[in-house]
Amino acid sequence: MLIDIIKQRQSCRSYRPEGVPRELIFACLEAARLSPSACNAQPWHFIVVDELPLKNDLCEAVFQGPYAMNRFAKEAPVVIAVITEASTFMARIGGFLRGTRYGLIDLGIAVEHFALQATELGLATCWIGWFHENKVKKILRIPAHKKIGCLVCLGYPREEAREKNRKQPADIISFNSYQS
Amino acid sequence: MLIDIIKQRQSCRSYRPEGVPRELIFACLEAARLSPSACNAQPWHFIVVDELPLKNDLCEAVFQGPYAMNRFAKEAPVVIAVITEASTFMARIGGFLRGTRYGLIDLGIAVEHFALQATELGLATCWIGWFHENKVKKILRIPAHKKIGCLVCLGYPREEAREKNRKQPADIISFNSYQS
Repeated sequence: MLIDIIKQRQSCRSYRPEGVPRELIFACLEAARLSPSACNAQPWHFIVVDELPLKNDLCEAVFQGPYAMNRFAKEAPVVIAVITEASTFMARIGGFLRGTRYGLIDLGIAVEHFALQATELGLATCWIGWFHENKVKKILRIPAHKKIGCLVCLGYPREEAREKNRKQPADIISFNSYQS
Repeated sequence: MLIDIIKQRQSCRSYRPEGVPRELIFACLEAARLSPSACNAQPWHFIVVDELPLKNDLCEAVFQGPYAMNRFAKEAPVVIAVITEASTFMARIGGFLRGTRYGLIDLGIAVEHFALQATELGLATCWIGWFHENKVKKILRIPAHKKIGCLVCLGYPREEAREKNRKQPADIISFNSYQS
């Protein structure tokens, strides 16, 4: 059941060294590809880094200095850089008028599809939003004007599922009017 | 399997009139509650509108004029307003430095958990990003300074699953360097 996958999914910061077969990576990407997005813009591009020397160089470069808190990512055999491409004209107009960048919502949906699919396949992931963006661009030959929405680690987890620390339902749910 | 739920999930614009039992709504909200978020901020609040007269008043008011394209939402027995609450201090600092509003990514994750859970339960949803925000606030007594990230329709679908129209894998996936 979906709820079991959701409970199993957690930010994994310790990975086993085995690589991930490409067919499993493709299965996760397929889950992401089928995601909904504002005006069906599909404003995303996934760069899978699974060549070990390249992946190591990338992690060495982008998790230095102020980004060192995410050095754990070096352990993961695969890192994916997710580019947020431009949304459609209509989605951008609507987003401008509403003060909401729909492309970021779309990114959230697609990468979470990826993460849930990975979990079902016995893999684990970690969303990383804090990294040296320009170094990622240089190493992966991403044009300077592109925006990297996030990195995602992928691999086989060394960790067991932990209890989730979340707000209580009453703190985040109201019926028929806002109650804080 | 998750991929079947993902294929089944689609933006539903035609609903049967039956209401949705609260226990099913809670199951969808539980899937959302367990979502990951930047720095575990959980920056969301769900207002479930399932009192029929109120839901009708809401839809009448917020899908007028330039928002009339989403009038289909009137058919749905339940509408959920999702507020994006402030992220944690660390997530806001990081987001500011990276030029990324993590709270919107978090919204995408949580609402998609909701939508996938609804799908597994035989329900259907539609994300709505285009509506008269101030009227939603007035009718649901949401403080003016709050930001409504999106509305979501919920109900039993009148529609069958359609084939998805998506970019091809080669258009959105590269390995080990960016290829457009």
